[in-house]
Amino acid sequence: MTETDYIKLAHGGGGQLTRELVEQVILPALGGPQRPGKLADAAVLAAFGSAGTDGQAGRLAFTTDSYVVQPLVFPGGDIGKLAVCGTVNDLAVSGARPMAMSLALVLEEGLEIGLLRRVLESAGRAASQAGVAIVTGDTKVVRRGEVDGMVVTTSGVGEVPPARELGFERIRQGDRIVLSGPLGLHAMAVMSCREGLSFTADLESDCAAVNGMTEPLLEKLGQDVRFMRDPTRGGLAAALVEIAVATGRDVEISQDAIPVNRTARAAAEMLGLDLLAAANEGRIVAVVAAGAAGRAVDILNKCRQADRPAVIGSVGPNADSPLVEMLTAIGGRRIVQMPYGEELPRIC
Amino acid sequence: MTETDYIKLAHGGGGQLTRELVEQVILPALGGPQRPGKLADAAVLAAFGSAGTDGQAGRLAFTTDSYVVQPLVFPGGDIGKLAVCGTVNDLAVSGARPMAMSLALVLEEGLEIGLLRRVLESAGRAASQAGVAIVTGDTKVVRRGEVDGMVVTTSGVGEVPPARELGFERIRQGDRIVLSGPLGLHAMAVMSCREGLSFTADLESDCAAVNGMTEPLLEKLGQDVRFMRDPTRGGLAAALVEIAVATGRDVEISQDAIPVNRTARAAAEMLGLDLLAAANEGRIVAVVAAGAAGRAVDILNKCRQADRPAVIGSVGPNADSPLVEMLTAIGGRRIVQMPYGEELPRIC
Repeated sequence: MTETDYIKLAHGGGGQLTRELVEQVILPALGGPQRPGKLADAAVLAAFGSAGTDGQAGRLAFTTDSYVVQPLVFPGGDIGKLAVCGTVNDLAVSGARPMAMSLALVLEEGLEIGLLRRVLESAGRAASQAGVAIVTGDTKVVRRGEVDGMVVTTSGVGEVPPARELGFERIRQGDRIVLSGPLGLHAMAVMSCREGLSFTADLESDCAAVNGMTEPLLEKLGQDVRFMRDPTRGGLAAALVEIAVATGRDVEISQDAIPVNRTARAAAEMLGLDLLAAANEGRIVAVVAAGAAGRAVDILNKCRQADRPAVIGSVGPNADSPLVEMLTAIGGRRIVQMPYGEELPRIC
Repeated sequence: MTETDYIKLAHGGGGQLTRELVEQVILPALGGPQRPGKLADAAVLAAFGSAGTDGQAGRLAFTTDSYVVQPLVFPGGDIGKLAVCGTVNDLAVSGARPMAMSLALVLEEGLEIGLLRRVLESAGRAASQAGVAIVTGDTKVVRRGEVDGMVVTTSGVGEVPPARELGFERIRQGDRIVLSGPLGLHAMAVMSCREGLSFTADLESDCAAVNGMTEPLLEKLGQDVRFMRDPTRGGLAAALVEIAVATGRDVEISQDAIPVNRTARAAAEMLGLDLLAAANEGRIVAVVAAGAAGRAVDILNKCRQADRPAVIGSVGPNADSPLVEMLTAIGGRRIVQMPYGEELPRIC
């Protein structure tokens, strides 16, 4: 990427182009010691404060996301709820218990106070439900036309309890892939709303905090939970390809095993989009030890947030060119690729 | 403020209207337990982790700010350096040692990669100089015209050492007000650049991390430092009025004592702006015990970042309607008011 190149929409899609921008421009420019090394959902910092009497100290998890979703209010959520849930979720899948959040606003001159209030009330409710406090914030205003409605940026800090260790390096051959519910509801709800698809009236974003699922999993399965991710931009496809690349192992999933929302599937077909690459905002994908997969599904089945959770695949052996393969419903095999840069701007 | 009102530019100015928006709309909407109580530069959270062998644990400070400055590159800095320094400074004046930062980008389609790289390199250098690591981030892209160049949002976490207590409630009658350098250089550099004032060629923003000043002050003066603030939007005027209102005490400053940058003063006169209300991005105002004021100035004089630091005033007795008064250079008295909402959008 040269100096005379320009930012394209696909640079923000969460796929291959986003990765290139981050790896070739952003990280090298930020430079040296202060580089966001692992591209994880949240950075887990060294122990903070002094160790307790047991000699163990919690670690601090820290994450941030900017939200630019259009429309600002969509079926099942709005930019406020989305921003809070997104940050809670990045902490949760890192094994952290959310402690506190910040919320920074960039507002367009002319924005209705009523809409701002609605969005913030929604953010407040979402924070309260997730058990996290919004403790600091910022408000900027720009001229009409200089931003589209509003940008909301949330950051969050959480504590990772001493015994919790999650990471690509803990994934083993034979581990199972568990998914908490059907794919693409967030992307399809937002896109249907934008495109005015009438048959999708009952389609709502899955936008929700996932710490109600991650906590019971981690509490009950302990070290048998190897790794978790919330498959947002780039969807399940991006999450699985990242796992394959980072572990150097093949990953295999079965299409039949993936829970389906029929309306989301119809919307995806109508819009020409792939649900595997579509954004979710209330799902988790967890890699767990083979022997714990059944219990993981049982635990998720008791969570209000899960919807037909299932074991959808497994981690294979080491490979020179690790691949994600999907056994299709009609008995074929499809290679699941990292989305290049989905064609869905401003989905979150 | 009713539902049918609209956001005005002045809501983002850091003055009276910003305060009304935050107090009447944002905080009530976010609601209940998760309210950013004290409107401080950073929230200081309860002790994190276990207490050490001395029974004392550090506290976590947490802050966020979105940056929308135009132009993106200005004399003395750019949006990247500004975003990093701004967050470091919010932590520093809260008594925290910066530990880690996040950096979230919203980029406009069509932005030059070269400009993005320049801004991020500057952010990386600023972070490195301030001794803090950028550990996590996010990148979103919106269509051309949907944001103006870029929005940068930084958040920061820092540790407040056990013995440090800063706050309005620690301010006493007779305490002195110490200022680290001349006012308004950031605002005047940005505005001069926008307005094309040629005689201001040597005017540079004061944009810099202030932890090189706050740390020696706190280390050497301890509890004699009562309170600190970095006077950004709303300037020294907003900072002093906040002190008067929060403590219920009059505050008096002397115009003659305030260090002056002649070019900034000339630019302010030309543009019809008040330096007292103009944004600074590398200054601190500190309230210190009367007996420590001289030492505070001595300490600041050894800091590269300070420029003719001075005792500029003092805290008076309790008052029913506490006021900030300035003894003017010609011997009069002027009441310093909270700026309503400065007429300078996108200064930071």
